[in-house]
Amino acid sequence: MRTRPLKVALLGCGVVGSEVARIMTTHADDLAARIGAPVELAGVAVRRPSKVREGIDPELVTTDATALVKRGDIDVVVEVIGGIEPARSLITTAFEHGASVVSANKALLAQDGAALHAAAEANNRDLYYEAAVAGAIPLIRPLRESLAGDKINRVMGIVNGTTNFILDKMDSTGAGYQEALDEATALGYAEADPTADVEAFDAAAKAAILAGIAFHTRVRLDDVYREGMTEVTAADFASAKEMGCTIKLLAICERAADGGSVTARVHPAMIPLSHPLASVRGAYNAVFVESDAAGQLMFYGPGAGGAPTASAVLGDLVAVCRNKLSGATGPGDSAYTQLPVSPMGEVVTRYHISLDVADKPGVLAQVATVFAEHGVSIDTVRQQGKDGEASLVVVTHRASDASLNGTVEALRSLDTVRGVASIMRVEGE
Amino acid sequence: MRTRPLKVALLGCGVVGSEVARIMTTHADDLAARIGAPVELAGVAVRRPSKVREGIDPELVTTDATALVKRGDIDVVVEVIGGIEPARSLITTAFEHGASVVSANKALLAQDGAALHAAAEANNRDLYYEAAVAGAIPLIRPLRESLAGDKINRVMGIVNGTTNFILDKMDSTGAGYQEALDEATALGYAEADPTADVEAFDAAAKAAILAGIAFHTRVRLDDVYREGMTEVTAADFASAKEMGCTIKLLAICERAADGGSVTARVHPAMIPLSHPLASVRGAYNAVFVESDAAGQLMFYGPGAGGAPTASAVLGDLVAVCRNKLSGATGPGDSAYTQLPVSPMGEVVTRYHISLDVADKPGVLAQVATVFAEHGVSIDTVRQQGKDGEASLVVVTHRASDASLNGTVEALRSLDTVRGVASIMRVEGE
Ligand SMILES: NC(=O)c1ccc[n+]([C@@H]2O[C@H](COP(=O)([O-])OP(=O)(O)OC[C@H]3O[C@@H](n4cnc5c(N)ncnc54)[C@H](OP(=O)(O)O)[C@@H]3O)[C@@H](O)[C@H]2O)c1
Ligand SMILES: NC(=O)c1ccc[n+]([C@@H]2O[C@H](COP(=O)([O-])OP(=O)(O)OC[C@H]3O[C@@H](n4cnc5c(N)ncnc54)[C@H](OP(=O)(O)O)[C@@H]3O)[C@@H](O)[C@H]2O)c1
Repeated sequence: MRTRPLKVALLGCGVVGSEVARIMTTHADDLAARIGAPVELAGVAVRRPSKVREGIDPELVTTDATALVKRGDIDVVVEVIGGIEPARSLITTAFEHGASVVSANKALLAQDGAALHAAAEANNRDLYYEAAVAGAIPLIRPLRESLAGDKINRVMGIVNGTTNFILDKMDSTGAGYQEALDEATALGYAEADPTADVEAFDAAAKAAILAGIAFHTRVRLDDVYREGMTEVTAADFASAKEMGCTIKLLAICERAADGGSVTARVHPAMIPLSHPLASVRGAYNAVFVESDAAGQLMFYGPGAGGAPTASAVLGDLVAVCRNKLSGATGPGDSAYTQLPVSPMGEVVTRYHISLDVADKPGVLAQVATVFAEHGVSIDTVRQQGKDGEASLVVVTHRASDASLNGTVEALRSLDTVRGVASIMRVEGE
Repeated sequence: MRTRPLKVALLGCGVVGSEVARIMTTHADDLAARIGAPVELAGVAVRRPSKVREGIDPELVTTDATALVKRGDIDVVVEVIGGIEPARSLITTAFEHGASVVSANKALLAQDGAALHAAAEANNRDLYYEAAVAGAIPLIRPLRESLAGDKINRVMGIVNGTTNFILDKMDSTGAGYQEALDEATALGYAEADPTADVEAFDAAAKAAILAGIAFHTRVRLDDVYREGMTEVTAADFASAKEMGCTIKLLAICERAADGGSVTARVHPAMIPLSHPLASVRGAYNAVFVESDAAGQLMFYGPGAGGAPTASAVLGDLVAVCRNKLSGATGPGDSAYTQLPVSPMGEVVTRYHISLDVADKPGVLAQVATVFAEHGVSIDTVRQQGKDGEASLVVVTHRASDASLNGTVEALRSLDTVRGVASIMRVEGE
């Protein structure tokens, strides 16, 4: 074993960074044995230098992250600051100064992954980011390496723990969205400003990363169709139950049947209770992968939290350090298929639609005609009347998002349709 | 991209090998793009040369596997013959002649993994075998690489599809063992001689491999406690149901609480229906991993079959080819902890014991005294009487296997105990 240590610069020492530092200290011997050389924490960049940080030598702490990555003796930079800047510039600078990079930054990777990978490659360095998607769950490495000899057709997963916690609460207690969100906030599962989670920005970033890796193509954040889960109601859960379903916020990346394009989307959807994703509880994450040869695989575990995320960061750190010692680099960016990303209108799935309609004869016939005119075939209809008002619940066969939208627009213009109470996709059947 | 192809020798062209060859042909362009060089099937060794093999150039087929691996121009040998010899000698010869090796051979890896890894290392070559455990499920790579910065404490899984199919049938239909086995045989899930599966030799080999990787130590096949599932009865399933459990054949690898030793065992066990492993149906496999930082992870998918197993083989092939091109080797054997493997007697778990007893007063007191004398604490007892005969079902708290065995021996010598109908471990709580 080499005795001269590899030097690690830690950028950020918050929820994740502090756990990375802790494990680097407590598991130092194991890490050294697995890497083939000791690893040394050479510097820790933070915003507030005076904050007391247990277990961190104050001498190592700096607010000048740029100077740290420019030192020239750093082997690996671990970026756990988050956000776009200064993280992006720091990573690029790190590559230019000979370091490899491990990051947990999904927002940055989804937005600038291609440029960062190019910078890594130009400097013959590694960029690893297992922690950026689904926290502790080994997912990027299995997709990129274990399935490298297979053809992945679909990745569908619960990749945001906060929203899964909220939806699970709504499902199990009958609570409304706000009540469940309040509980998630009180328990620390949701941040004070939950927008990134509940509006599915976080999940959309992960979907972009997953789709790119799974299909060996370029999927930009803007390519991902995104619908948050703030409008999911207790009534939606009741409807889901009647269908033997529950509701999950899903990230779905698909290769078109003809193989010529891909799609990526994030939205709430009903899934059958028998689907493995239906039983993913609380803040857990799980990702279902379908490929030609392997068939159906599922990966399950904690999607966030300091220690779980640090586990993924450290797995990458070991790999990157091993590569550094052997003078090789791991599998980098792979976007050789250059498949176009189709717009949402071309996505084909099933729909569950609740309509408030006038309680009079002929309404069903009118509604059914509109569906037929738009080429959307109906699977089941349920009619419920009360006090001159009635509701119609329609579940369709597979139809394109564009046809469904056309149908709904036409339905809204019917006199007998008082309102469209909800539209939800049905997945996983 | 390099244009000169990497040469692959395929040893064995049966269920798995024929799928490896097929995918190498149909996915040639993707493999080349992912590796950075084309891969060429340079030879296929089989036993019966005259057998018609669809898609395989007859010119490539040979019965002289040794000559094939000795050719000197082979970059990677894929060993999918199975069994100990000639697979072992062929792999060793392959390393000596400069090839890296991908194998799906759990029996060989469990028995001779250390020697084969040493041969790989001595020749600076790779030995990869993702397909040897849990077929298509990425498991060895996640354990070895993704969790390389974490400390794994427990690996518990369903790693044999045949026995899971049989147990699932027994659970869902109330069938007995023989009836369920017959159905598995008829459907091709069980081989004509099912011994390796039902007596858990196959699962024990996988447990040895998993324990070694998870704990960075050496676990020999003989170190694995093994109990088959041929004696599981419909009555056991009825008892399990009463406890809110089902029965699975589990491979369990554990680090002792004090960290100073490990255990590995394979046996049928009751697990709560709420445990993620309980809902693994049919011939699927799933493995639950518990580590310090990541917490609880689960990996799920098809554990066998030609195409799924080939998916894992090809993932390894891509990695090994990439390493070859970069002149590096992947993470190899890691047994630096040298932890002793404790005997089964020291394993601590809970037990479900059914006793046939005389239906008279004082029996329960007698039985309870025996448990107490052996330091085995009782959680619940259920007494059922019929026609002068009665049964006692005892569920214990956690106790060592040795104490439990002592208890059972003493129970057998009681006049009032007519027989011990079944003893089953209770896991996953
Ligand atoms: N938390 C999770 O469960 C989780 C899960 C998966 C991925 N991630 C990702 O991991 C990354 C870090 O998340 P986190 O939860 O650990 O964030 P956090 O708790 O807010 O920590 C951020 C850290 O960065 C430091 N920092 C902020 N601006 C800086 C600057 N300009 N220069 C130097 N240091 C700066 C902060 O310093 P001070 O300590 O002085 O404030 C703090 O130590 C993010 O990309 C996030 O998306 C987090
Ligand atoms: N099948 C699965 O689902 C599965 C799953 C995981 C792992 N595995 C492992 O994969 C390996 C292969 O399994 P399999 O199911 O593909 O076996 P298989 O169908 O029996 O195929 C074995 C192949 O090896 C050839 N062979 C036998 N002896 C040979 C010799 N002395 N020299 C050259 N070739 C020889 C056979 O030739 P002929 O074709 O001429 O008979 C046949 O092509 C085993 O280690 C197994 O444990 C299998």
